[in-house]
Amino acid sequence: MMLLRHAEECIARCRVLALYTEEPGFTTRTFLAPSMHQVHRDLTGWMRSSGMTVRVDGVGNLRACYAAAHVGAPVLCIGSHLDTVPRAGAFDGILGVVMGVKLIELLGRRRLPFAIEVVGFSEEEGVRFGLPFIGSRAFIGELDPSLLLKCDENGVSVADAIRDFGLTGVEQLEERAAAYLEFHIEQGPVLESLGMPLSVVVAIAGQTRVRLTFEGRAGHAGTTPMTLRRDALACAAEWMNEVETYAANTMGMVATVGRLDVVPGAPNVVPGIAKLTLDIRHEEDTLRERGVEHLVARASAIASRRGIHLTSEIVSNQAAVRMDRDLTGMLASAAERVGQCVHSITSGAGHDAMIMARKMPSAMLFLRSPGGLSHHPDESVLAEDIAAALAVGLKFLETYT
Amino acid sequence: MMLLRHAEECIARCRVLALYTEEPGFTTRTFLAPSMHQVHRDLTGWMRSSGMTVRVDGVGNLRACYAAAHVGAPVLCIGSHLDTVPRAGAFDGILGVVMGVKLIELLGRRRLPFAIEVVGFSEEEGVRFGLPFIGSRAFIGELDPSLLLKCDENGVSVADAIRDFGLTGVEQLEERAAAYLEFHIEQGPVLESLGMPLSVVVAIAGQTRVRLTFEGRAGHAGTTPMTLRRDALACAAEWMNEVETYAANTMGMVATVGRLDVVPGAPNVVPGIAKLTLDIRHEEDTLRERGVEHLVARASAIASRRGIHLTSEIVSNQAAVRMDRDLTGMLASAAERVGQCVHSITSGAGHDAMIMARKMPSAMLFLRSPGGLSHHPDESVLAEDIAAALAVGLKFLETYT
Repeated sequence: MMLLRHAEECIARCRVLALYTEEPGFTTRTFLAPSMHQVHRDLTGWMRSSGMTVRVDGVGNLRACYAAAHVGAPVLCIGSHLDTVPRAGAFDGILGVVMGVKLIELLGRRRLPFAIEVVGFSEEEGVRFGLPFIGSRAFIGELDPSLLLKCDENGVSVADAIRDFGLTGVEQLEERAAAYLEFHIEQGPVLESLGMPLSVVVAIAGQTRVRLTFEGRAGHAGTTPMTLRRDALACAAEWMNEVETYAANTMGMVATVGRLDVVPGAPNVVPGIAKLTLDIRHEEDTLRERGVEHLVARASAIASRRGIHLTSEIVSNQAAVRMDRDLTGMLASAAERVGQCVHSITSGAGHDAMIMARKMPSAMLFLRSPGGLSHHPDESVLAEDIAAALAVGLKFLETYT
Repeated sequence: MMLLRHAEECIARCRVLALYTEEPGFTTRTFLAPSMHQVHRDLTGWMRSSGMTVRVDGVGNLRACYAAAHVGAPVLCIGSHLDTVPRAGAFDGILGVVMGVKLIELLGRRRLPFAIEVVGFSEEEGVRFGLPFIGSRAFIGELDPSLLLKCDENGVSVADAIRDFGLTGVEQLEERAAAYLEFHIEQGPVLESLGMPLSVVVAIAGQTRVRLTFEGRAGHAGTTPMTLRRDALACAAEWMNEVETYAANTMGMVATVGRLDVVPGAPNVVPGIAKLTLDIRHEEDTLRERGVEHLVARASAIASRRGIHLTSEIVSNQAAVRMDRDLTGMLASAAERVGQCVHSITSGAGHDAMIMARKMPSAMLFLRSPGGLSHHPDESVLAEDIAAALAVGLKFLETYT
């Protein structure tokens, strides 16, 4: 019950930080925006009060160290990201940082056999530069220098942005970093639908994005008989049905046609062109790859039967990342020991833990998202779920070695 | 063979008239545009040379009279429209007027037991005021005065446009007008697919336009499992398949989803809203009405099964118009007598003959559209098809009483 008060304080702190924005009336805070200084200021205050030493690293990650009982001990990293999508909610990312700080407060200056670094990554969403995970990539020493040349819509490069914020840009992985733990809202409806507060993450799904264009022949909606049409949209509709059915029948797969543009797009003209995107995700790379292959082949077969020309292009391809089995097991045990029944889930969204997992054992704990809502001002999280997660976190810190 | 030369002259005249435009490099000529003066000038020249008296009526219809053998004889009207869609071809509408003039020329001042009025309607496409058939409505004395208040995108009303062109706007139906004949390109692929040059029109299809909005719930494309989605686009796709199948299985029906907008329309977001239009046409009003009812009911059932909210609205509803059976029969007989095998077709597009049919027996002859193409700069017509149509027209004039 004591934890509930702390959970409410976490929510209140997230609400304060949500006021720091580039866009009055909304929470919009991209990589190294001026409002990030205010976020750093408030977090730094809370971090220092609980006995941490704080610095901003070369790419704007806020890093707070809580020393171990002994010098030279390994470091457990706990973190998430401080940036947001445009018109975001108050919890995506930043809640994981605020909870990290809260766990340190709850330790009450008690020293552990390992140090803890609470990290607020400067960038995860990829909004400003179309390049996600700038913060965590730099953290592990893998920020490709060529990426520094990418420009935002005002022509400011990543390198410029870093310099303008007063930073150096160079980071190397801390050798003592031994593991990474991330608390994050689920951003989906699964936990709510199960009536459960928490879930460990077993993997982050791989993702393929495909762009498809069906090109038929525009025609007069009145004078072109059904049998003489080459209707690009009707063709796309037939294929979209197959996409939905295929994904629904493949356990763990999600497939989405999120964008669809029709040319010419007039009520009395048979569509000549339909352009659309397919986003397909699965925790098993082979199943995802087989799905992409099957659905593109079906698009081609349906188009060809209808005298329609198909072009398709794989825009991006990202392998699945498994979380560390042992660390995830420790997290699940900690949950069990505090009486929490936790679910196991594959994350369909990318997270900093994907990047951190390249260099160290990583694990994630998801908190239920009411209404499945995220990337929206109405995004929320329940205080009792945060309290449960804090209890799991404290037990984890007790048992982690 | 002599007619072929005249047919080629018709094409050449249409090509000249296509140069009179509001938009250099294209043929764009809306209601009472300045370029309409040039069209009137050239047509008037050809009309007068063949012995006709010419006037521009109160709404800008160009009307040329070819006197009968006797005073007080009935009048056969032959016409089509002089306006175009934006970036039009050279033949839609105006070919029917040019052919009317050519038939008079071919009479060589021979008098018939009836007068002929060749009419070039000032407006049919509905481009400038979103109101089609201004010319033919006024011709039959049915231009509703309230329509005169409608404004174009520059805030100029129909009444202003009429006054600015130097016209009065008032017209009454000529009492001696006894029948209406219209030559027009098919604007569709049917005659070409049959390898036939000409078709009589038995009816102009009725048309219903419906706006439908499927409203589901937007969601993260990665974190929302297929079973927990309320995907508005997937729902629309399932329904669009049914629309296509239903129309394909209903003889003579065409149904088109020509416009589809997806919200938010991002590759990684499950669509929350899909807005679309349905255009459905049939020569039998009861079959069209039953089709609309069935398809809207199916949309509602599919949406409801998926937890999606459907709103639908009938935007317009236009009854089918039958061409006059006797006049059409005379046209078909004339064709037979000159050795032409003519097809019978229902026009899926609206024509001035729809309006004229309210007041007098009306008939139409379609000419094959190469590639089914119309409303496009590449729209064309074959000289041999015009020659065949002129032969039919001359025989019709010989036999019409």
